[in-house]
Formats: sequence, structure tokens, C-alpha cells
Amino acid sequence: MMDSILSPTPLDRLAAELGSDMEAVSTLIRKRMVSRHAPRIPEVTAHLVEAGGKRLRPMLTLAAARICGYEGPWHVHLAATVEFIHTATLLHDDVVDESAQRRGRPTANLLWDNKSSVLVGDYLFARSFQLMVEPGNLRVLGILSNAAATIAEGEVLQLSAARDLATGEDTYLQIVRGKTAALFSAATESGAVIAGAPEDHARALFEYGDALGIAFQIADDLLDYQGNSSATGKNIGDDFRDRKLTLPLIKAIAAASPEERSFWKRVIETSRQEEGDIDTALALMERHGALAATREDALRWAERARDALRTLPDHPVRHILHDLADYVVARLL
Amino acid sequence: MMDSILSPTPLDRLAAELGSDMEAVSTLIRKRMVSRHAPRIPEVTAHLVEAGGKRLRPMLTLAAARICGYEGPWHVHLAATVEFIHTATLLHDDVVDESAQRRGRPTANLLWDNKSSVLVGDYLFARSFQLMVEPGNLRVLGILSNAAATIAEGEVLQLSAARDLATGEDTYLQIVRGKTAALFSAATESGAVIAGAPEDHARALFEYGDALGIAFQIADDLLDYQGNSSATGKNIGDDFRDRKLTLPLIKAIAAASPEERSFWKRVIETSRQEEGDIDTALALMERHGALAATREDALRWAERARDALRTLPDHPVRHILHDLADYVVARLL
Repeated sequence: MMDSILSPTPLDRLAAELGSDMEAVSTLIRKRMVSRHAPRIPEVTAHLVEAGGKRLRPMLTLAAARICGYEGPWHVHLAATVEFIHTATLLHDDVVDESAQRRGRPTANLLWDNKSSVLVGDYLFARSFQLMVEPGNLRVLGILSNAAATIAEGEVLQLSAARDLATGEDTYLQIVRGKTAALFSAATESGAVIAGAPEDHARALFEYGDALGIAFQIADDLLDYQGNSSATGKNIGDDFRDRKLTLPLIKAIAAASPEERSFWKRVIETSRQEEGDIDTALALMERHGALAATREDALRWAERARDALRTLPDHPVRHILHDLADYVVARLL
Repeated sequence: MMDSILSPTPLDRLAAELGSDMEAVSTLIRKRMVSRHAPRIPEVTAHLVEAGGKRLRPMLTLAAARICGYEGPWHVHLAATVEFIHTATLLHDDVVDESAQRRGRPTANLLWDNKSSVLVGDYLFARSFQLMVEPGNLRVLGILSNAAATIAEGEVLQLSAARDLATGEDTYLQIVRGKTAALFSAATESGAVIAGAPEDHARALFEYGDALGIAFQIADDLLDYQGNSSATGKNIGDDFRDRKLTLPLIKAIAAASPEERSFWKRVIETSRQEEGDIDTALALMERHGALAATREDALRWAERARDALRTLPDHPVRHILHDLADYVVARLL
């Protein structure tokens, strides 16, 4: 909050720079999320759309197209596509996670029911595919449909890795690429491709989105252990109580003594968690430097994101993306 | 069963005629349903794929392409796309319906969990979009992505119309178009379009698929009240116990006396069903001729399907499709 009073955040600057394009995206989203036949659909989607996420992903598409000098109309469709895919996955995630809160508000599965969340999520997926077809660009279609498959694969992998102490950093990275980075990188790459950017620029923007998404997700997973709930909308240790194997936990478990290991086995594999277990978990993470090492990883991915931008044309939006990479991990400093 | 000993059914004949193409479809489906990273995916999909549906929908795509003289390779991708969309919707349907059986076997949501069904369904949707992009035909992409949206819309509509006595035949038809006919007509139309068929042939094959799908679904809904469970894999009155407003019920309710209406209100709106209610329901349907009228509707849609074929080139496969339209309602005679 202080941030936005003292100086605009990179997100604010992006929003200002892309203002009229984002207006067009919002209009398109509102137009396409309705359904002539099924009034339940806009009820559920409006709830999510008006909860007002930061719309980071569609802004990435618009930003990439802008940097690459695009002047056509189709980046708006691609940005809306990306937001629809994101919203659909949120609906399904909340069913799978049995979440009760999202962005500080009750989730759709709680307000309506799981059935509505599953089916309205399917509707948004289908709508996203209709949207992505309209620009008539087959390469963009390949990028976005591949991203959708990677996302779903990541979600399934996360489900089967859940509560499995053997989950290593490689698997974690694959999950993070699926659940977060795949859509970030598809957002930036598709913006470049619709603009007809040269191959190396499209590649650089893909790399930027990939690294930014990974930095963003690692930061999110770290904040679950050291954030404060008013900033994140989540409670400290939610992932721990859900027995999710995120990076801080994976690092602590890798370094665990036999005695510590049996603690982890009990709290993660068997669900017999007790009062005070979260404090023990935090102490063990601290002992092995797991939180600090996780923070280092996040910062390293943010640096990779910044580096990826180097070969791109000099452009005000490029500078904002540069600062955005720092911003997603600044919460950790 | 007797049927297939005495004379081949239209389905058997289609399968024989399209044998090598269907082999290619099966191979492609097996290849694309795996996931390098998430072994849970093939477990769940193999369970469904090997349960061995009749593969009616992919055969419709192949049949349409064949009638239109197609000699390229891409109808196989489109047929696999259609089957993936179908399988994904089955997975999500079983979650929404809380089903325990599908094709006489336990459902995936029962064998694994709802979470796996939701996420693996998403994966198959995404895979279907990857597959449909590959032929590089934008018109086919429009047809199939529109169908996916219509399917999802129909499912949501079905959910909000559930247990609502005010549901009329118009809404029922919209639901049926969504949950069944949209994929049938997309299957046939996309087969025609990939073959570069003239507009009126593509239109005729769309109409055929639409009418066939509606006839098929009405027959299915009728059999729920008059079939036998060994033939359908369902128990008599399952829809009644689920309080689903299908055509026989809608017709009986439209003709109900005030006294009958309060019976319907109790059993459909309030869930207070008692032993013997199904017999009362059947007697009321019989009294108002609801079952006979439903049968008439199914036969009329089958006739429309046959009629749609008239303008198509004379072809052995066209004759099989003609007989197939009779076959999907023959179970009712």
C-alpha cells in the first residue's frame, strides 16, 4: 500500500502504459464471459473477474506485443485468452484444493458448489479456445494450446506429488513451470509472435515469462512461511497444513536428520498434525537455511528474467518489465 | 447381443468400413493420452479408453470425411480430438453427477478421486486442442472450439435446470444439443470441412450429426424409464432418483393435474422420495402418454437425420449412416 503512494509500482506503470489496450481487454472479457443460455455462468465468472486480480498475465501479452512494435488488434484477443485460461484454472484449483478463500473473498465452490466451478471452468476453457482461434495465427495457437496442456500436466503432477516426501527440486520445478510459468511464458511469447517479432525476440520474451513465472511462484511459496496474511490473503503455513511439498519444505527435508525426518513423515505423510507443528517446521527450516536458500533461488530466477530482456529493442515497456522482475521478489527482501 | 450374431449392426458395418482409419485413431489416442511427467494421467485415461466405448463420435468424423472423398491424413487427428473431448466431458460429468458406474465399471472419480477426474479431464481437453490445431485448418478449429463452448454451456444449463419443474421442452432441447448433439454435429461437419467438401455437403453432414445426437439422447433418456439395466448399464429410474428433468418427465409434468403436480413437486423439488414413487411416476407418464410421445420425438429426429443425408453423394458409408439413424432409436421399438 505504502508503495503505491510513494512511487508507482511496476504493475501500476504497466497498467498506465497499457491503459487503453487493457480497457479493450476488459471489455472483451466481459463480453465473452456471458452466456445466452446459462445465466449461472456470468454469476460465477463475474464473482471472479470483479474480485479484481492484478491482470498480470494479460498485461504481459500486451507488453510483449508493444515492445515488438505490434499495431494490429489481435493482442487484445490473446490477452483475454490468457486471462480466461487463468480464471478457468483458478476455478478448478479451488475445487481440487477445497479452498474457501481466494483474493480475500469466498471461493466460487463455496458460494455455489463444486459442480458449478467444474463446469463454468470448462466453459471458460472453451471460450479461451474460441478467442485464440480468432486471430487466425497457427503458431500462436500452438503456443497457447501447448501451454494449456502443460498447465494441466503440472496440476496432475502436483496432485500425485502431494504428500510425497520423495518429491525433489526437479519435480517442484516441473510443477511450478506447469502451474504458473507456462502461462506467463505463453503470454509473453504469443504477444511477440502475433507482432511478427524476429525469432530471437520471441525466444527472449518466452525466457522472460518463464523465469518471471518461476520467480513469482517460488516467492509465493516462500511467503506462505514468512509472509503476513493481510498482504498475501493467505495464512502463514497454509501449505504446511495442506501438506504441500513446496521449495522451503523440500530443502528442509533434503537436509533432515533421521529424527527430523520422522517429524516430516508424521506431519506430511500421515496428516497427524498437532498444535505447534508449524513452529517446529519453521525452526527446522531455519536450522537448515531452507528459507534463505529458497529466497536465493527466487532472486536468481528474477535475475534470469531481467537478463532475458537484454537482446530486446530499447523500449519504455521493456524497462518496466525489467523492474517487474525485481518487484515480484521484492516482497521477500 | 442377438443383433450382432444374426446380422451386423450399422456400428459393426461402420467399424468394418473404417477399419484402418480407426486403427490409426486408436494409435493416435494411445500416443497422445500419455504424459511424460504425470503417470497418473495414463492410469486414469487408460481406464476409460479401455472400457471400450463404441467410439461412435470419431467414426462419424471418419465417415463424413470418407463420404466427401477425403484422402489426406488429418481426419484421424480430428477423430481423436472428438474422442478426447468426449472422454474429458465424461470425466467431468461423473464428478458433477457423483456417478459410481460408467459402462458397467466403477468411474474414475470412485477409483481415484474427484481431483484426478477434474485435472485429467482438463488435460484431455488441452490435448484435444493441441490435436485440432495440427491440421492447420482454421475453419475446423472454429467448428470444434465452438462445439466445446456449446457443450460446456449445455452442462451448466443442465445443472441450473436440474430439479426445476419449470424446465420446458425448449430448455431440454438446448441441454441435449449441448451435452450430446454439439459434438456429434462437430464430428460430422469437421470431417466434411477437412475434406474440402462443398458448403451444402458440410451443412448436410452438420444437420445429420445434430439430429442423430438429439435422437440418440432422447432415446437414452427414454430408456432410463423403460430400458433394462443389462442393456444400458443403468438402472431403471436413475434419472428420476437424480431428479433430472428429462423429456418423459417434462411431458408428464406439463400434462399434470394439480394433485399430480404436488407429487412431482415433492419428488423432484424436495428430494423426499419414497419407496414406490418410481412406480407412481411411471404410471403418471403412462396416463399422459409421455413415454409414447417421447418415443415419437426420438423417431422424428432419426427421420430428420436420414433426410439430411439425401443431398450427399451416393456412397456405401452414406447408406450405413442412414441405417445408423434408425439403429439409435431401434432400441425403443
